[in-house]
Amino acid sequence: MPTIEAKLEGQGLVLPAPIQLPPGMVLPFAWVRVRGDRAYVSGHVALDPDGALAKPLGKVGAEVTLEQGYQAARGTALAILATLKRELGDLDRITAWLRAFGMVNAAPGFDRMPLVINGFSDLIIELYGPERGSHSRSAVGLAELPFGAPVEIEAELEIQG
Amino acid sequence: MPTIEAKLEGQGLVLPAPIQLPPGMVLPFAWVRVRGDRAYVSGHVALDPDGALAKPLGKVGAEVTLEQGYQAARGTALAILATLKRELGDLDRITAWLRAFGMVNAAPGFDRMPLVINGFSDLIIELYGPERGSHSRSAVGLAELPFGAPVEIEAELEIQG
Amino acid sequence: MPTIEAKLEGQGLVLPAPIQLPPGMVLPFAWVRVRGDRAYVSGHVALDPDGALAKPLGKVGAEVTLEQGYQAARGTALAILATLKRELGDLDRITAWLRAFGMVNAAPGFDRMPLVINGFSDLIIELYGPERGSHSRSAVGLAELPFGAPVEIEAELEIQG
Repeated sequence: MPTIEAKLEGQGLVLPAPIQLPPGMVLPFAWVRVRGDRAYVSGHVALDPDGALAKPLGKVGAEVTLEQGYQAARGTALAILATLKRELGDLDRITAWLRAFGMVNAAPGFDRMPLVINGFSDLIIELYGPERGSHSRSAVGLAELPFGAPVEIEAELEIQG
Repeated sequence: MPTIEAKLEGQGLVLPAPIQLPPGMVLPFAWVRVRGDRAYVSGHVALDPDGALAKPLGKVGAEVTLEQGYQAARGTALAILATLKRELGDLDRITAWLRAFGMVNAAPGFDRMPLVINGFSDLIIELYGPERGSHSRSAVGLAELPFGAPVEIEAELEIQG
Repeated sequence: MPTIEAKLEGQGLVLPAPIQLPPGMVLPFAWVRVRGDRAYVSGHVALDPDGALAKPLGKVGAEVTLEQGYQAARGTALAILATLKRELGDLDRITAWLRAFGMVNAAPGFDRMPLVINGFSDLIIELYGPERGSHSRSAVGLAELPFGAPVEIEAELEIQG
């Protein structure tokens, strides 16, 4: 069975560098908090390979199309995997995805949030398979997200302790 | 002590069929993710017995009244119980409700979200009693919810492993 | 090593009384749900020492400035600690903060939610130190919060069982 990283490589997928924060912004929390067999993943947004915020920014249903929102959710999965790789060393230490909370920066009246967050779920299940990759999920419309990101996702996972 | 299902029956409460999704919408995640003694419940909305979205849809404080919102939250509890029954077989395998995250599709200026989500909490505590049914909770106003649902709730529970 | 309560006292910080709810509002859930080594903390808002809602109320970026929002997040940390003190007896029974979900009542276009929720994270890490106090976090913009509060935070912690 190929490793998760072999699968990423096989698909030409790149894990981005840590987020580049705006000058003067200090974030004191942990991007992932590991304790025992649990990993609590902070809200992530999609990033370019160098850690810059992925474009386009803005609200899905207005400046950002549904398809671009799907790509942002997929990019958010990669940003989360990048954080987990830095913390765990090996992405195969993840034994079960448990919960994903998918937040869409929603334009008034836009209610297809599930189709946006599928960009995250599809990739995680593709990489980890239907058993390890299965997860509970919400996909809802927020009023505003940090930096105008179109999508933010937080998650909880089980890991090999 | 009557079982949970006997209590539901005694009150004439019906657990709805699985949600009928709009044509072409595929949702790849699990409605509940069970792992060890934990069940992570995806965001659910209220359903008619046949799995259609319960009416009225829209924002609480505008198209949907507070009392209708309360009923939607109660219906959401039933939809969650229906999912748990399908997954666990027996609703008495739930040993403790832990966390509920109550999301209200809020009209501008509507801030009585706790009174809406009480529709969920009241039913869960009525069915499971003050010890097993006790749960932490947030009740907040979202900008948009999928399909224009007035209420969506996700949850975490402890189960007999 | 000074206890958490000694640290609070040393800084002149006061844990507020339980929230004073508007007349007629009954909230049936638990402000914190403890089970085994986990404590699930309900969404809290900032309170005055007597349990009244801390002022100013309203949206951050409109009626409430970023700095006032930061203070509200700090006050929310104190309200959560007050609940945990009542439930656990001793705030040093908390062995690890795990997750904080920071919700900002965001005015349209306000996207500095992380700088607001830092008011919570900074205090928790100051009190508990970088190891025990570390936590995953999201900081996002809600459409409405109960009672017009500018900030609401829910959390999950590990405790000495």
